[in-house]
Amino acid sequence: MSNYVKIFDTTLRDGEQSPGATMTSAEKLDVAHQLARLGVDVIEAGFPAASPDDLEAVRKIALEVGNPASAESEAKIPVIAGLARANKSDIDKAWEAVQGAKKPRIHTFLATSPIHMKHKLKMDPEEVVQRVSEMVAYAKSLCDDVEFSPEDAGRSEPEFLYVVLGEAIKAGATTLNIPDTVGYTTPDEFYKLIEGIIKNTPGMHDGITVSVHCHDDLGLATANTLAGIRAGARQAEVTMNGIGERAGNTSLEEVVMALKTRHPVFGLETGIDTRQISRISKLVSNYTGILVQPNKAIVGSNAFAHEAGIHQDGMLKNQATYEIMRPEDVGVNQTNLVLGKHSGRAALRNRLAEMGHSLDEVELDKAFARFKDLADRKKVITDLDLEAVIADEFYRPRDVYFLDGLQVTCGTMGMPTATVRLKGPDGKVHAHASIGSGPVDATYKAIRAIVNVPNKLMEFSVHSITAGIDALGEVTVRIQGRDSRTTMDAQTEVPYPRVYGGHGADSDIIVASAKAYINALNKLIIAQTEGTEKTKNDFGVMLG
Amino acid sequence: MSNYVKIFDTTLRDGEQSPGATMTSAEKLDVAHQLARLGVDVIEAGFPAASPDDLEAVRKIALEVGNPASAESEAKIPVIAGLARANKSDIDKAWEAVQGAKKPRIHTFLATSPIHMKHKLKMDPEEVVQRVSEMVAYAKSLCDDVEFSPEDAGRSEPEFLYVVLGEAIKAGATTLNIPDTVGYTTPDEFYKLIEGIIKNTPGMHDGITVSVHCHDDLGLATANTLAGIRAGARQAEVTMNGIGERAGNTSLEEVVMALKTRHPVFGLETGIDTRQISRISKLVSNYTGILVQPNKAIVGSNAFAHEAGIHQDGMLKNQATYEIMRPEDVGVNQTNLVLGKHSGRAALRNRLAEMGHSLDEVELDKAFARFKDLADRKKVITDLDLEAVIADEFYRPRDVYFLDGLQVTCGTMGMPTATVRLKGPDGKVHAHASIGSGPVDATYKAIRAIVNVPNKLMEFSVHSITAGIDALGEVTVRIQGRDSRTTMDAQTEVPYPRVYGGHGADSDIIVASAKAYINALNKLIIAQTEGTEKTKNDFGVMLG
Repeated sequence: MSNYVKIFDTTLRDGEQSPGATMTSAEKLDVAHQLARLGVDVIEAGFPAASPDDLEAVRKIALEVGNPASAESEAKIPVIAGLARANKSDIDKAWEAVQGAKKPRIHTFLATSPIHMKHKLKMDPEEVVQRVSEMVAYAKSLCDDVEFSPEDAGRSEPEFLYVVLGEAIKAGATTLNIPDTVGYTTPDEFYKLIEGIIKNTPGMHDGITVSVHCHDDLGLATANTLAGIRAGARQAEVTMNGIGERAGNTSLEEVVMALKTRHPVFGLETGIDTRQISRISKLVSNYTGILVQPNKAIVGSNAFAHEAGIHQDGMLKNQATYEIMRPEDVGVNQTNLVLGKHSGRAALRNRLAEMGHSLDEVELDKAFARFKDLADRKKVITDLDLEAVIADEFYRPRDVYFLDGLQVTCGTMGMPTATVRLKGPDGKVHAHASIGSGPVDATYKAIRAIVNVPNKLMEFSVHSITAGIDALGEVTVRIQGRDSRTTMDAQTEVPYPRVYGGHGADSDIIVASAKAYINALNKLIIAQTEGTEKTKNDFGVMLG
Repeated sequence: MSNYVKIFDTTLRDGEQSPGATMTSAEKLDVAHQLARLGVDVIEAGFPAASPDDLEAVRKIALEVGNPASAESEAKIPVIAGLARANKSDIDKAWEAVQGAKKPRIHTFLATSPIHMKHKLKMDPEEVVQRVSEMVAYAKSLCDDVEFSPEDAGRSEPEFLYVVLGEAIKAGATTLNIPDTVGYTTPDEFYKLIEGIIKNTPGMHDGITVSVHCHDDLGLATANTLAGIRAGARQAEVTMNGIGERAGNTSLEEVVMALKTRHPVFGLETGIDTRQISRISKLVSNYTGILVQPNKAIVGSNAFAHEAGIHQDGMLKNQATYEIMRPEDVGVNQTNLVLGKHSGRAALRNRLAEMGHSLDEVELDKAFARFKDLADRKKVITDLDLEAVIADEFYRPRDVYFLDGLQVTCGTMGMPTATVRLKGPDGKVHAHASIGSGPVDATYKAIRAIVNVPNKLMEFSVHSITAGIDALGEVTVRIQGRDSRTTMDAQTEVPYPRVYGGHGADSDIIVASAKAYINALNKLIIAQTEGTEKTKNDFGVMLG
């Protein structure tokens, strides 16, 4: 058996499905580029049947990231996968989306647990077996690389799984992914499940990769994934920062660093360049607005904090006494670079290129202007500041509304007041003043008065991107529109009330708050103008 | 073997040791009260030798929480434990702190891994065995309930552990705690370690409780803890939200809910009233300033979010299809009560009492005034709003500086300006105006000009406590003073550069930011005025 574990990243599919994690197409493309640089083997770029937007985002990733222009070795090009339910329409859409990639994959799934077959699918076990056989064969007729997942495998009858998986192999699937969809199993149970599948599935052979896909509802996702790998799985489905629905998916960084740190125990390799983990973790957190808690393993701000004190004091005699990984192994120290007030355009271009952002001259001009503006207020510009500026400037939906001016007074004297000036899609400038319970409330009320789209603020958070009193503030908001049926969950098939996340960065947190809100509203407006077609489409698929 | 697993909560000791999690004595006492209500079996209230403040906080908890006035059944009174290194001075201090409790415990530890013995302790294995024997016996001479931990057991030689633990039993220890101090082991390794200890330790008998204490550096803390329990451990050392140094400790909520949700697999019970988990999780997050990420298992804001969509749409045929726990089992729905503008003083008193806060008449007057003020601006006041008000009003250090007035102008026009008025410890009012890169920067510069204490802002974050645009904003900051030697890590013995956390709540986030900064500065000032004595004390212990 190979000692190489493939890393299948589903940040853009299962991760993006978590409430509020919605990313724009440009943001998704950037994340895909970064994942390719990180060295993941497979990028699950989305669920193309969810909406025309989703299909288009996957198609772009397949073309750009799955098919790099530069003469990199073929081995380094990631597989681009698209998810599809086990029906022809979904599979067609997935193929349409991924076929432009050098290495396309169709990933189809059908539930196999008694509870799902009875209540969700309303199908007999025999019908399930037949559908799997037909749909895997159909996918195979389009695409050589087909992955099949028996949904809710963690609660399925093992004997039935063997039958279904055997049919999938017969029909041409080369990857069999075993999801613990509801995060229910213990590591021992999951080990036995994978062991049993490898041993008992008819037709199992060396050309088949068994994959594991776990959820963290009981805090066991990483342990279950590692248990599956010990039992013989050679693909792990993971997300950056462990984002995903409910308690999220297995964290890429935890699985990769456990395999690396305990290499003598596992004896397994991955293709991940771990030194990029810290930076990409922050990028995903910024784009999705899903914060990483300080005590998160590997990527939390405290994960290596113990070390700081130790180094400063130089009192500990041997680093390894309290350190099982070095911060530089996950790139923590590399973010402390870097540019200052006197750095030039070339230095900025080089640094951005090293970070994986290649801008054209016009974009570089814009970035340089933002950089200079920031450098006037902040002595040292780190990679994180640059990522924030880049995100703020370039990975945005096409602007519907744009912040043209803001003036705020607030404090303990009462009556916080905001005057907002927005440039609208009509090219005209609109201004409005409002009072609120605080400066953000006042600002948001003024924005709402201009942008007349019903919405509800779900969450609002600010954090400083870098330490220090002159830090850049980053605001993320999540809003929910009234159009509660614009997207669909791949698994529950529930048209989910879509939540839109927005983010904004500025040294003035009220300005950043305004930008974040406008960003989220713009996403909502774009979705609504595409609304009619999208809704029809979703339901067509859903009931089909 | 018993089917009852004791929950040993170390939020106040190992949790509070994480950078920035510093709590005031009043906050610690409140958390201890809440943990007792939650039903934990043991509260590790602190490390009394760290400083006179720490000793005093543990002493208060022992007296108040470990010795309740009301006639509750004795079984429900938690054990109050104090940590002590294996020396007489530490053990004396621990005893001094816990002896007022109805059920006191001294928890002493000494490292047993080759790397720790050689580099940290500079002791031979024989010396370690002898020291353990002597110090456990000494603790036993003071206190009937003695727990011993071989530090870094995860990297210790099993054969040597058996010898050390056998000596600890001989000397009178009744709980043997096995820490995976650096979060290094895998569940299989940890299972074998615990199994081996139970089987091979000389003198092991039914009166001895084996305990597990895991860290989450590789994301495996919960799985390791459950593996240890499966192998026969009957005490789990955990913290709320999994806070703790680096990637933190095992999460109380994950272990408890895994045992409950998978009861048929484990067949084990705990004494935890799980419906209080959600509320106490938020309390600990507010006091420590350590945020919980949305995708955190059990207590993250998204942990049950899938469910929301399902309920709203009513489209899913069977709840259990995607749900392995009910939100109400961890108290998620209970927080959505509650009081409105017209609620009276009695309603507020009742609600606060139900939440475990018993205020006297003067305190209730203050709380009611704050409540009415908030109700004017916010239609519905939830439990979370109340917790924020209570925290803001009552669990504060005695004020050194107090915010008397604030006025801010900011926006895109440049030159954000803040005017701050503070009441100082001298009773006088000081005012100052500053410009900054943003409104928070301007406010903080003005505060710094008045409160002339060197400090560095490490982190700044704002989040809305409740959804909606009129939400109360909560700001947490962490600052570091210049006095880099005021506290000491129990395990590394490194005098840690102390980080002070502050929090503030207000509907105006700039006002909340000012309050949070002043709160952190007040903690720093209090620590510095006690500095000389404390430093001497720390080093006396450290070198002794």
